[in-house]
Amino acid sequence: MTVNRHPWANTLDGLYEQAWARLSRGVGDRHAPARHPTLATVSARGMPQARIVVLRAVDKQAGILRVYTDLQSAKVDDLRATPMAALLVWDSSAHLQIRLQASVTILTAADAAPLWDKMPEHARMAYGSSPPPGQPVRDALAYTKSPDPASFAVLDLHVLEMDLVHLGPDHRRARYMREDGFAGQWVAP
Amino acid sequence: MTVNRHPWANTLDGLYEQAWARLSRGVGDRHAPARHPTLATVSARGMPQARIVVLRAVDKQAGILRVYTDLQSAKVDDLRATPMAALLVWDSSAHLQIRLQASVTILTAADAAPLWDKMPEHARMAYGSSPPPGQPVRDALAYTKSPDPASFAVLDLHVLEMDLVHLGPDHRRARYMREDGFAGQWVAP
Repeated sequence: MTVNRHPWANTLDGLYEQAWARLSRGVGDRHAPARHPTLATVSARGMPQARIVVLRAVDKQAGILRVYTDLQSAKVDDLRATPMAALLVWDSSAHLQIRLQASVTILTAADAAPLWDKMPEHARMAYGSSPPPGQPVRDALAYTKSPDPASFAVLDLHVLEMDLVHLGPDHRRARYMREDGFAGQWVAP
Repeated sequence: MTVNRHPWANTLDGLYEQAWARLSRGVGDRHAPARHPTLATVSARGMPQARIVVLRAVDKQAGILRVYTDLQSAKVDDLRATPMAALLVWDSSAHLQIRLQASVTILTAADAAPLWDKMPEHARMAYGSSPPPGQPVRDALAYTKSPDPASFAVLDLHVLEMDLVHLGPDHRRARYMREDGFAGQWVAP
């Protein structure tokens, strides 16, 4: 008989709590897998898009995750066309895949200012680039970064659904929906 | 002066070659970051979807990457509605983000049979589940896996565009398009 090293995966509640614990760890620990989730969006032309983001905050009670972005980045254009995102974390030590579906609110200007004000100067360098991210440049380093609060945006991901897969001696998969308070339902892996 | 530990990132060609080398490593080395890329698709309802896949083959000359899937999985439904995918690898030791946009061909039945025939029995267990992946079950383990060649599908990703970001002392980003033979163009990171 194989021992399950992750007994939390045996119950719907245990699995759900573990997923949020792993997400929370990503906010504080730069080496945690959830520090750098993949954020997937749909472009205005209907194309799938995915990139790494940095997880900045999680609120389990409200079911909200937060990331920052340059307002001029393509992902903002995507989210203005389709304000939905998928977020994915693969936590190899937990053998756990965390998939979220979320509706996204974009905070800018005065709504984002309190977070900008708290940010150290070196971190602000990520927001404000000329030309904007993704625009052609004549040489690799022919761009400048200059902190600009008008380029800073906050993406709040309101979780609608969470899909968790645990790869153990037996695989387990469950889906949690906001509409029933994230009660959880086992599904076939 | 900061030393760039990754001189390959200084040229468009060097960056491109490195990305393919890292992708190739994912096929043979189960511990390589490219072993488990994120595959993003768009559902029939227009929602972004993302999940981890296993990279099975790469062909740099043809610009094709290959993954396997259960034919009954939701990603196949997505790809039948929108035959486009984004694939993402974050290779932390190379400080390299690899993003692909690809059109996807789904191989099944006789087209997939040569690959099925070469697959060891234990690997076949991943294809053929009752109920199908993602369907509700009354209990976590109330499903069976039974290898079924009719449930096996191969996804061939024909790369249309590759977007590479190297996070070094200076950040570099370049985009490569199939339409010009993947010549490459620096863009602002």
